[in-house]
Amino acid sequence: MKIGLDIMGGDYAPKAIVLGAIAAHEALSAGERLVLIGDTSLIKPVLAEQGFNPDHFEYVHTEEAIGMGEHPTKAIVQKPNSSIAVGFQLLKEGKIDSFASAGNSGAMLVGAVFSVKTIPGIIRPCLSTLVPKLKGGAGLLLDVGANADCKPDTLLQFGILGNLYAENILQIANPRVALMNIGEEEEKGNMVAMATFPLMRDTRFFNFVGNVEGRDLFNDKADVIVCDGFTGNIVLKMAESFYILTLKKGFKDEFFDRFNYEKYGGSPILGVNAPVIIGHGISSPEAVKNMVLQSKDMIETQLVEKIKKAFK
Amino acid sequence: MKIGLDIMGGDYAPKAIVLGAIAAHEALSAGERLVLIGDTSLIKPVLAEQGFNPDHFEYVHTEEAIGMGEHPTKAIVQKPNSSIAVGFQLLKEGKIDSFASAGNSGAMLVGAVFSVKTIPGIIRPCLSTLVPKLKGGAGLLLDVGANADCKPDTLLQFGILGNLYAENILQIANPRVALMNIGEEEEKGNMVAMATFPLMRDTRFFNFVGNVEGRDLFNDKADVIVCDGFTGNIVLKMAESFYILTLKKGFKDEFFDRFNYEKYGGSPILGVNAPVIIGHGISSPEAVKNMVLQSKDMIETQLVEKIKKAFK
Repeated sequence: MKIGLDIMGGDYAPKAIVLGAIAAHEALSAGERLVLIGDTSLIKPVLAEQGFNPDHFEYVHTEEAIGMGEHPTKAIVQKPNSSIAVGFQLLKEGKIDSFASAGNSGAMLVGAVFSVKTIPGIIRPCLSTLVPKLKGGAGLLLDVGANADCKPDTLLQFGILGNLYAENILQIANPRVALMNIGEEEEKGNMVAMATFPLMRDTRFFNFVGNVEGRDLFNDKADVIVCDGFTGNIVLKMAESFYILTLKKGFKDEFFDRFNYEKYGGSPILGVNAPVIIGHGISSPEAVKNMVLQSKDMIETQLVEKIKKAFK
Repeated sequence: MKIGLDIMGGDYAPKAIVLGAIAAHEALSAGERLVLIGDTSLIKPVLAEQGFNPDHFEYVHTEEAIGMGEHPTKAIVQKPNSSIAVGFQLLKEGKIDSFASAGNSGAMLVGAVFSVKTIPGIIRPCLSTLVPKLKGGAGLLLDVGANADCKPDTLLQFGILGNLYAENILQIANPRVALMNIGEEEEKGNMVAMATFPLMRDTRFFNFVGNVEGRDLFNDKADVIVCDGFTGNIVLKMAESFYILTLKKGFKDEFFDRFNYEKYGGSPILGVNAPVIIGHGISSPEAVKNMVLQSKDMIETQLVEKIKKAFK
């Protein structure tokens, strides 16, 4: 198993990423190899400083990098030698089994769709994120920003993707899938939500538990919450801002601690032909480590194969 | 000035509403009269119990009431003698200058549009809510649920309505109006948000400060945040759930205290031909008192007249 990791992406790259890779290495077994993609001249000093044997990793040297503010499509096309573009090339060629980066999210999305491509039958891949649950554990929210406008059949597919992720990676048996809406009743919602409800109610692909509301994100009503990427992105950023607020206010609590994205790794792109994870821009070594372990889980459980099978 | 108040609406009606009316009375001057609409046989004992002179209020006796779970349109049509329907009848006839209720929100919205009607030129009235700001004071979020699907010109109008409310009632000079979106850049967003941005950028009706994101709800980037009612309702319910969570966790903080809806009164319906306010279902006497004072402010500042003028 080869887990690809972009060393150049993220606000604290390359150092935080390399430190995360070292931490991840401790948790991986012999056959699970990390492939660090980036400027090796920047990687090696960090390894030396940490007294870490460089032979534990594999390396693909790149000299270009895509910045956080760059236009995703332009950057991917104009910087074929950037760590993100090279990572996707390796993923496409099967030289790595997964690819993760805490860099430019848009470039990661575009790169995934350009290189390994969308799984046949899937209308649009989406971005998912883990949300802490009050009772413990985590649920999944998707889409959180890949598709600002979604049609009902696209949302139905997000339900299928989320269900498979929850079942395989979060190890939730028969996950409860819900639709984010503005009321519990079937007839509530905007036009898209109202048209999505019967599709989800009648699907045989997952256990639909109906509509949930903004107040239900963290409670136990559903394991997977589906929404369009516009709503999901606003909800996600609002939740993050609350977490930051509790930190600033000095509130300490086990539940709020679990808002810390570091514990979850990153946001998987679901619906493409390989495991791809986008890390938070401010990823710390712990976040990177967990992103690597999340990559491993996605490879090991053959999530992508299972998604392909569901959409055949 | 006659301020109409539905005594029958709300989870703790009629007692909490009558107690709120008594508290409001202390803050009103001689010419500002409260008109209590509901079953007088339920009102009088509460006044007696409180040793409150019943002559301070005016009364309109009704024997029917609309329940929280009733279908809004059906209830308004089938219960013309309910406190909400009678309240709107009085408002339409000019016998009261404003109408407020903590009862069935849907019936309040339908009743407002059926009775006093939408102001000419306004596509759709909307529901607004106050949000506490970290720096102190409050901002306005609209729409929070009256219109799940909104077109760009409707959102532009919400900006005009929010601007006038912020200026007149919140007394913010030249309010900064923003569009809730998933990125700060002009080209970000779903189709509706992308089409709304240039309309807001080019308007002469308010000071548009661009897009804000989910994380900006409580910070100082904007005084008025405009979104469709689907997004706004989810955002509002999520914020409420966070507030409840901080209470449950025992976090005490001045900012979180200001999440308490009680301090703000209710949610004004903007865009109809009279001041109408919907209170929170769980309204306490303090919330009712503040809803009455908010009604008074809306009458006193002639907000409706100013809105009419803006849409002429």
